[in-house]
Amino acid sequence: MADLFWTPEHLEEMVSARSRILGPQVWAAATPDPRHLISFAGGLPDIPSLPGEQLLRAARAVIEREQKEALEYGGTFGPLPLRDAIAERSSRIEGIPLTRDNVIIASGSAHAIGMVCETLLDPGDVVMVESPNFPGSMRTIRSFGATQVAIPMDEQGMRCDILEDELQKLADQGKRAKFIYCIPTHQNPAGCTLQLDRREKLLELARRFNTFVLEDDAYGELWFEQTPPPSVFALSNGDHGIKVSSFSKIIATGLRMGWIMGPPALISRVAALRYDMGSSPFLGRVIAEMMRNGDLDRHIENLRGIYLRKLERVEDALARYTAPYATYTRPLGGFFLWLQLRPGLNSRDVQMAANEKGVVVGQGPQFFADGNATNHIRLAFSYVAMEEIEEGIHRLGEAMAEVAARTAAK
Amino acid sequence: MADLFWTPEHLEEMVSARSRILGPQVWAAATPDPRHLISFAGGLPDIPSLPGEQLLRAARAVIEREQKEALEYGGTFGPLPLRDAIAERSSRIEGIPLTRDNVIIASGSAHAIGMVCETLLDPGDVVMVESPNFPGSMRTIRSFGATQVAIPMDEQGMRCDILEDELQKLADQGKRAKFIYCIPTHQNPAGCTLQLDRREKLLELARRFNTFVLEDDAYGELWFEQTPPPSVFALSNGDHGIKVSSFSKIIATGLRMGWIMGPPALISRVAALRYDMGSSPFLGRVIAEMMRNGDLDRHIENLRGIYLRKLERVEDALARYTAPYATYTRPLGGFFLWLQLRPGLNSRDVQMAANEKGVVVGQGPQFFADGNATNHIRLAFSYVAMEEIEEGIHRLGEAMAEVAARTAAK
Repeated sequence: MADLFWTPEHLEEMVSARSRILGPQVWAAATPDPRHLISFAGGLPDIPSLPGEQLLRAARAVIEREQKEALEYGGTFGPLPLRDAIAERSSRIEGIPLTRDNVIIASGSAHAIGMVCETLLDPGDVVMVESPNFPGSMRTIRSFGATQVAIPMDEQGMRCDILEDELQKLADQGKRAKFIYCIPTHQNPAGCTLQLDRREKLLELARRFNTFVLEDDAYGELWFEQTPPPSVFALSNGDHGIKVSSFSKIIATGLRMGWIMGPPALISRVAALRYDMGSSPFLGRVIAEMMRNGDLDRHIENLRGIYLRKLERVEDALARYTAPYATYTRPLGGFFLWLQLRPGLNSRDVQMAANEKGVVVGQGPQFFADGNATNHIRLAFSYVAMEEIEEGIHRLGEAMAEVAARTAAK
Repeated sequence: MADLFWTPEHLEEMVSARSRILGPQVWAAATPDPRHLISFAGGLPDIPSLPGEQLLRAARAVIEREQKEALEYGGTFGPLPLRDAIAERSSRIEGIPLTRDNVIIASGSAHAIGMVCETLLDPGDVVMVESPNFPGSMRTIRSFGATQVAIPMDEQGMRCDILEDELQKLADQGKRAKFIYCIPTHQNPAGCTLQLDRREKLLELARRFNTFVLEDDAYGELWFEQTPPPSVFALSNGDHGIKVSSFSKIIATGLRMGWIMGPPALISRVAALRYDMGSSPFLGRVIAEMMRNGDLDRHIENLRGIYLRKLERVEDALARYTAPYATYTRPLGGFFLWLQLRPGLNSRDVQMAANEKGVVVGQGPQFFADGNATNHIRLAFSYVAMEEIEEGIHRLGEAMAEVAARTAAK
């Protein structure tokens, strides 16, 4: 019997309903590819600027000054100095008064979004999802048995007119959306930023239809030349908008630290369901020290310049190599450029042809809650080495040319 | 409407079924008490020996050698070097061959237990729970809507005869337990260690009744004079036993790092439901470095001596101050001594009387899945300062004397 216990069949019979929804496939398992690839695929920070020394300096300060607090449980809401530092810094950026009671620390923003889902979603609930969107979040929402309604975007972000229709349809059935999930600033994957009038409209709709906006702001601070419009969270006075943020893109994805800002009643309810004894007080205090000593602000300032230079390099190369095949709207910040392929060029074909040339790009149904993928390719310009950008886009252009020739020959 | 959105009433209406089970009360929120207390309450490591310098040294080595890997996503299963180091070290300790495929890294063992529950439990499932037990785990199991059957213990650990009866009762109803949750070694709160014959019986029962043992081993390495019996996991050849362990007690609770060991099929299924992009690669690699450079083994060796000395100090004081009121079985390791009060002395009364004297101890229904608390007090001897032990137990003895006098006067 022992041998049969963990067979796929018996396991499938034993697992929870939630586990059954997602099945046995592991997501983001990080299996390395042995080839040297030029990667425009991952939403990852620039490597040479990773702030290892700043982290070590902060860690030393924390161990010398507050070792006991840093190495003990820090409570379900997360370490106080980090909650205070985030509240103080966010009050300044958002222009609304915030305290630690508005903040809970999470083990990355993916964890933060999961905790919000865990607290609010039951099977059969409906969530409005900006489309295209980050596959990880859509997978999480799906795992809780919720139905996602895909709201399409244009260059200015989510189509609030379509959102209104969908919310009205639900209301006509006596239902409402649990929340509206979106990435308003430097969107992943579409790169666009929701304009102020649409943010106001979005908030008005959330209020009118008795729901709220779950705003994912992993990229908001990484603007290039102009600060983005106020967050939906700020516009709502911290009420009908809940904001999820991360240190992944502004420090390092390897920390797994992020946070949720929202009304204290919700923050507390999220904490009440938490079973992990809170996110790392050690890491939390190290980050708080980087905020206190100015390293974080300096680092973000530095990153803005780096990502702008990378984007410019990508744009130069795109003008040279892919202009006949693709167009795009210039992102105002973040990590992503969303290439629209010209009619007749299939994004899957281009992705595969590029891959054969050692260039990796993102595309396809994974970004779309309803599977209705448009003909786009996501270029992450953040991670690729500066000196490989031109070569990478050159090969991508060759891939497009090959696919175009094949398509024309048919 | 905005003002009413996050009212307790509306929130209660919005939250998930799981959130409703636990309600709005936040657990382990870590609100500090301004008084100076002599605390025998928390299952926390000794403060002066916290290995801050070793952590800094390991962090420096990691940043110098592998900054990129440490500061990038490490995958859902956790960073490879830590999985490999755990598999290698555990193969040695457990005496069975293990590889990284048997290991997934978690953000502490509370998180690990939560992930197992998330993967396996649906409302209405039954879990057998050694009783008394760690309240955090019982709270987590409860949050998934599972029913817990409390299996009492004696000095040698869980009463396997009673477990057999309960499993048989379930089987007679055509049901089975999803798993059996226990802390076989240096149990929390009871301090006892499940003897080898009972471990074998436990495993035999798990096999016969088509279930498995979820073994929580937070304290197993902290033995004093003799190594504990093989883990249930090892006895089962890594099959009908799943083991959850933690770096909290052997390094620091402030890291929030632990792991699950089990059959690859289950480990992979746990990963498949995970939404947090894996536990911190930075912290994981720092710990792997402490394993590689020998600091972890040296530190554990050092801790065994410290905790034994603290236990001896506690025992000396108990002999002097509480002998008329309480008895106990000497723990073979871990953090806890479980004081049985003599008949007529109520543990809640003693706890309150001690608290008035500035001494904090654990007791009561929180440790019992079925609320049927026995008349015990949990003394954590790990955290209290060596030089405060005698004074703390002295005051506890006075508290007992007062309660005894009040009881006699009634």
